[in-house]
Amino acid sequence: MNGRNLTLLCDFYELTMANGYFQSGKRDTIAYFDVFFRDVPDGGGFAIAAGLAQIIDYVKELRFSEDDIEYLRAQNCFSEEFLDYLRSFRFTGDIYAVPEGTPIFPREPVITVRAPVMEAQFIETYLLTVFNHQSLIATKANRIARAADGRVVSEFGARRAQGADAAFLGARAAYIGGVNSTSCTLTAKDFSVPVSGTMAHSWVQMFDSEYEAFETYCRLYPDNATLLVDTYNVVKSGIPNAIKAFKACNTTKCGIRIDSGDIAYLTKKARAMLDEAGLTDCRIVVSNSLDEKIIADIIRQGAKIDAFGVGERLITAKSHPVFGGVYKLSAVEENGEIVPKIKISENHEKITNPHFKKLYRLFRRSTGRAIADYIALHDEVVDDAQPLELFDPIYTWKRQTVSDYYAVELLKPIFLNGELVYDSPDISSIRDYCSEQVATLWEEVRRFENPHRYYVDLSQRLWDLKNELLAKGGKQ
Amino acid sequence: MNGRNLTLLCDFYELTMANGYFQSGKRDTIAYFDVFFRDVPDGGGFAIAAGLAQIIDYVKELRFSEDDIEYLRAQNCFSEEFLDYLRSFRFTGDIYAVPEGTPIFPREPVITVRAPVMEAQFIETYLLTVFNHQSLIATKANRIARAADGRVVSEFGARRAQGADAAFLGARAAYIGGVNSTSCTLTAKDFSVPVSGTMAHSWVQMFDSEYEAFETYCRLYPDNATLLVDTYNVVKSGIPNAIKAFKACNTTKCGIRIDSGDIAYLTKKARAMLDEAGLTDCRIVVSNSLDEKIIADIIRQGAKIDAFGVGERLITAKSHPVFGGVYKLSAVEENGEIVPKIKISENHEKITNPHFKKLYRLFRRSTGRAIADYIALHDEVVDDAQPLELFDPIYTWKRQTVSDYYAVELLKPIFLNGELVYDSPDISSIRDYCSEQVATLWEEVRRFENPHRYYVDLSQRLWDLKNELLAKGGKQ
Repeated sequence: MNGRNLTLLCDFYELTMANGYFQSGKRDTIAYFDVFFRDVPDGGGFAIAAGLAQIIDYVKELRFSEDDIEYLRAQNCFSEEFLDYLRSFRFTGDIYAVPEGTPIFPREPVITVRAPVMEAQFIETYLLTVFNHQSLIATKANRIARAADGRVVSEFGARRAQGADAAFLGARAAYIGGVNSTSCTLTAKDFSVPVSGTMAHSWVQMFDSEYEAFETYCRLYPDNATLLVDTYNVVKSGIPNAIKAFKACNTTKCGIRIDSGDIAYLTKKARAMLDEAGLTDCRIVVSNSLDEKIIADIIRQGAKIDAFGVGERLITAKSHPVFGGVYKLSAVEENGEIVPKIKISENHEKITNPHFKKLYRLFRRSTGRAIADYIALHDEVVDDAQPLELFDPIYTWKRQTVSDYYAVELLKPIFLNGELVYDSPDISSIRDYCSEQVATLWEEVRRFENPHRYYVDLSQRLWDLKNELLAKGGKQ
Repeated sequence: MNGRNLTLLCDFYELTMANGYFQSGKRDTIAYFDVFFRDVPDGGGFAIAAGLAQIIDYVKELRFSEDDIEYLRAQNCFSEEFLDYLRSFRFTGDIYAVPEGTPIFPREPVITVRAPVMEAQFIETYLLTVFNHQSLIATKANRIARAADGRVVSEFGARRAQGADAAFLGARAAYIGGVNSTSCTLTAKDFSVPVSGTMAHSWVQMFDSEYEAFETYCRLYPDNATLLVDTYNVVKSGIPNAIKAFKACNTTKCGIRIDSGDIAYLTKKARAMLDEAGLTDCRIVVSNSLDEKIIADIIRQGAKIDAFGVGERLITAKSHPVFGGVYKLSAVEENGEIVPKIKISENHEKITNPHFKKLYRLFRRSTGRAIADYIALHDEVVDDAQPLELFDPIYTWKRQTVSDYYAVELLKPIFLNGELVYDSPDISSIRDYCSEQVATLWEEVRRFENPHRYYVDLSQRLWDLKNELLAKGGKQ
């Protein structure tokens, strides 16, 4: 948390409800909440989970300062007993979550919290803020990296990010999702992400001539100089001056960046000019309002590009800037029994899956491909030596029996009884895991437009329970 | 900054350029940079400036830790002299900015930085991040508050914000822009913004019946209870149970919140039921993916609403999530003379205004209405006792001579020689100032769709200088 106390970064109603539970005899009631989302941004086939490392930091460091408590007292709506309780407030429950970098699908639990209801309710806001933000950016970055089709992608959107955390942690999430580097120095330092960046137009303007600006830069950074060639005129001035500077300084690793104009046309022209000058290794970097659609389009047009710099459309997920993860009550414990809870709605997409649950991903043993996700009750065990019958939870006549599969439980214990029991992998392991897991998905699920809907099915017992609760109108 | 060191929240190129200036004899060169933006989000007629208080904090606290310097050394591209210089790096220059809450228009300087080029360049990233983010949200909030037409608007988007700062400072900016309260407790505490929030669906689900949940809440908060009535069925169950609970508990200030379904229909029905029960003072609060368009539309349909809760579409500015503020070199000093700089472009919108400048807003003396903004060179003085001829900077034959006006200089000194010389007003003063200043704009400029383009004109001297530099292709 870098020294900040973010305990009060919560919706005020978490506190009015907590005080209410405290006052009304529910302070020891154990509740279960699930985090899930309903729609994949940009109409994609899957999202990428991210943000768990920051959720862990938050939960570990959760505590109310005297200053916080004084502020709450001044609101004149909390009891003194409750305010006193907040002094020793810590998270004492359990959290299960899918590892960062996991492809995730609508309506499946990706985080489950089991704790005294005051604690479980309280952590809702920050947990959703972090999970929603980083999953949004990791998902977008994964689309952009896939569109770049093996070419390098650098994230450099900090100046257009929605605040410091959006820049700092957005760059982290972008790296998990698949970009190759970031310009955000703090992210690079704190998370060991490769850093990149060379010059702005102002560098060129600060010198008496473009050539002088380029030559100065190449003498300073002879091992790695990427020159911005569009301050005056790319073809007539920028590229010729860059070639001259690279040659004068014997730059060992060189590149040019084009930040305006028609990228397809200019990069072809630039490639020809550089090759003609014998600079066949000189990289061409492009930037300027890129996203996965523009990248795919200019590649299709034969643009000659080695690397993309991607800014605002990645760091804000501009085309779809909200990840709609929600936090819903799924059960409470009464006299040691788990009592399932459901939230009903006119809209069947908004109906929740009740009870404490497990999430399995089924992979084809022969190919390693992901077949389906399977949500079961907490005490069910999938024996992958046996065939398993799957059915669509809405169109229940759609059935298949799978064999030749193995089942992986996706929800890992993160906290148990308030103790952290999980080691967050380093970021390059998370990024590798993400890439491997995305590769297990069918190409049809990975398609950008109108992807195949991946199966997320319920166990027969969970389906029966859900329908029983629905028949009772959501009330036990 | 709440304990964080955000010095390295910068694009890496700020550092490679700074090292370059340091090494190439430009460490003492004074440079001028302007912040301006090109397009108003959502096609609106003006934006609202915000974020200055956080920029001030950042500039004051700017310093490289040994840890930061160690990280930079490990990149193997900075000279030891430069790394040593960073130890004592402080901002020693001048910053001028429009006060927070000021309506601002495309292409006018809203922040001007004058400092040794390394310092002026270095602060670019964070300054833009904060200014862009908070101005984006303040602008969106102002649209939403104006659409609500005097009704209360509560910001409660934290869980969908793009990270912690986006929630925390986004709520601050939303309040400046005109919302009445926030659910973000940390914002409320740190900036003295009114806080609001009552209950989630989970509260209702935690009790054996909806009525028990409502009654418990009303007994706990008899002075201010807003009950969420859509967990099961608004009309058949939620509103009747709420009425019963308010009466049983003699709730003095009561309200209901509807978070789903058809808002226009349900609020009319709810109003009738509440009035029938004698609860004519009971407020009706609505939420669920609201923005200025939906709010204006449901008001037009006669919905009976006292307050709006606005979440993701405000806190991410969903319909236009990027504020495109840029930071461009406008001049350097050489031998004590200011040498103007211009960035040219094929696209005339992207051509910068050169030189160290002033920004005046001209108001009609008789009505208080804003007439035009007027950008002049730093040593020009508008004498508002004299008539002033304005002309369109593109269609220069469009001219008018204004009299009966007074001129206000908008760029205030914030830092001079590295010293803070500005007292940030408290947030409610900023919010009041914003509201007053927006009221000076013609209704035609305030229109949501296709607003009248407000005049932003150049002085004759600035226009002449700009055209002279353009004729020379941007080079002196």
